[in-house]
Amino acid sequence: MTYCCGILVRDGLVMFADTRTNAGVDNIASYRKLHVIEKPGERVLACATSGNLSMTQMAMTLAEQGMVLPGDVEPTTFANAPTMFRAAELAGHAMAQARRNIAPSLEADDLTADGNMLFGGQIRGGPAALYFIYSQGNFIACGPDTPYLQIGEFKFGKPILERALHSNTPLDEAVKLGFLSVDSTLRSNVAVGFPLDTLVLRRDVLTGIQRRIEATDAYFNDLASRWSAALAAGVQALPAPAWLDPANANVATPPAGRDARA
Amino acid sequence: MTYCCGILVRDGLVMFADTRTNAGVDNIASYRKLHVIEKPGERVLACATSGNLSMTQMAMTLAEQGMVLPGDVEPTTFANAPTMFRAAELAGHAMAQARRNIAPSLEADDLTADGNMLFGGQIRGGPAALYFIYSQGNFIACGPDTPYLQIGEFKFGKPILERALHSNTPLDEAVKLGFLSVDSTLRSNVAVGFPLDTLVLRRDVLTGIQRRIEATDAYFNDLASRWSAALAAGVQALPAPAWLDPANANVATPPAGRDARA
Repeated sequence: MTYCCGILVRDGLVMFADTRTNAGVDNIASYRKLHVIEKPGERVLACATSGNLSMTQMAMTLAEQGMVLPGDVEPTTFANAPTMFRAAELAGHAMAQARRNIAPSLEADDLTADGNMLFGGQIRGGPAALYFIYSQGNFIACGPDTPYLQIGEFKFGKPILERALHSNTPLDEAVKLGFLSVDSTLRSNVAVGFPLDTLVLRRDVLTGIQRRIEATDAYFNDLASRWSAALAAGVQALPAPAWLDPANANVATPPAGRDARA
Repeated sequence: MTYCCGILVRDGLVMFADTRTNAGVDNIASYRKLHVIEKPGERVLACATSGNLSMTQMAMTLAEQGMVLPGDVEPTTFANAPTMFRAAELAGHAMAQARRNIAPSLEADDLTADGNMLFGGQIRGGPAALYFIYSQGNFIACGPDTPYLQIGEFKFGKPILERALHSNTPLDEAVKLGFLSVDSTLRSNVAVGFPLDTLVLRRDVLTGIQRRIEATDAYFNDLASRWSAALAAGVQALPAPAWLDPANANVATPPAGRDARA
């Protein structure tokens, strides 16, 4: 399993990927799943991958070597793609080709050749962008209505993003929300594990900040424990339902919803 | 899909079940999935079910009619089971029997006969208890290390319970946490839906408080919107990582984790 998350807000892009791979709970290992291609001041591109590791590693290699895209003569690479959209096409072609390469032998053994990729970044002259790239090579773009994308074990880490992240959330808040989303996942799925790779890209600053977070990372652990304390205090501060008080047990909840529509 | 959750804390028991059933996104309906059997002052038992509705409804009917458990001559019912453990055995037998009844014809059409049940309550003279009952009829008991059980679409609603719920959490806090867990699930899975059925059982008060929460419920909606605001404020109050400041980009995070172990 894996958990990768990309957040695209007004101020920039943040990407997270864990490093755990597993073939059963008794066979785990660490592999980098966040790949960053950077020409400081000109472009920063990042791929975070989930699924069959042999397929996604092959896709990364194919894309980095360059592929001739339909209608072209010269190969496109991450280093020469003129736009994020074109670079996403390259990433999609690489995923689809890697899948075609390995699927027949895997399927013969009832194994599946599946993987997904989050592809984000910015190329000088264009906007920052984030895409969800499927095994088949097609992709969708992240937009302001839901300013994040997730792959792998996404459910545990979704509620906090769903409640608290907006496209105008400041970049440092987005980094904290992303870490808390990852922390929620790490707590519930042992197939997601440290170290955690992070890329922060401030919009139009075409140089990324990369960080590897180990299990002993002081900032991450402090953040997670402050957050648990803040949640407990926050729940305490919320009112309890009036009908919980035995004195009110037979008092109906006022139909405020209906009033509100009246 | 379904989301049901049971919480067993020092002060009592809370159970939640949504009411949505679906056969595809274009065919949804509401069915009660929280069944309460109560003799006020003597026993309160509750079953929350997920999975194949025809199977779990049949299991409920079989258990309510009574079944002769292995080694017995007289039938056990929810009304006469002497202990929670015996009542859980009845619920398990009913699940296994319902499954045997319907599995052959379902499996012939490549359908599965699967369902789970949360079974909780208290019978005078014994402790409050909560069990996870499997399709096969076996079951596990909820304990203080993880004072909650979930069935159905459990992942979205797990992080808040995992962080903030403990076996000594007061009962009214447990109710709020349960509602927030359900709210997180409702926001992310359209196969989980209102109305929501709730049972609150204060330990040794052998009369339950039952409540049906509609989508327009004023308390529930207020709780959810206060919570989103509290989360956003809570994240703002957390420190951002020092390495996000461009001035510190090359300063290593102090290895506090290692120091802490030293």
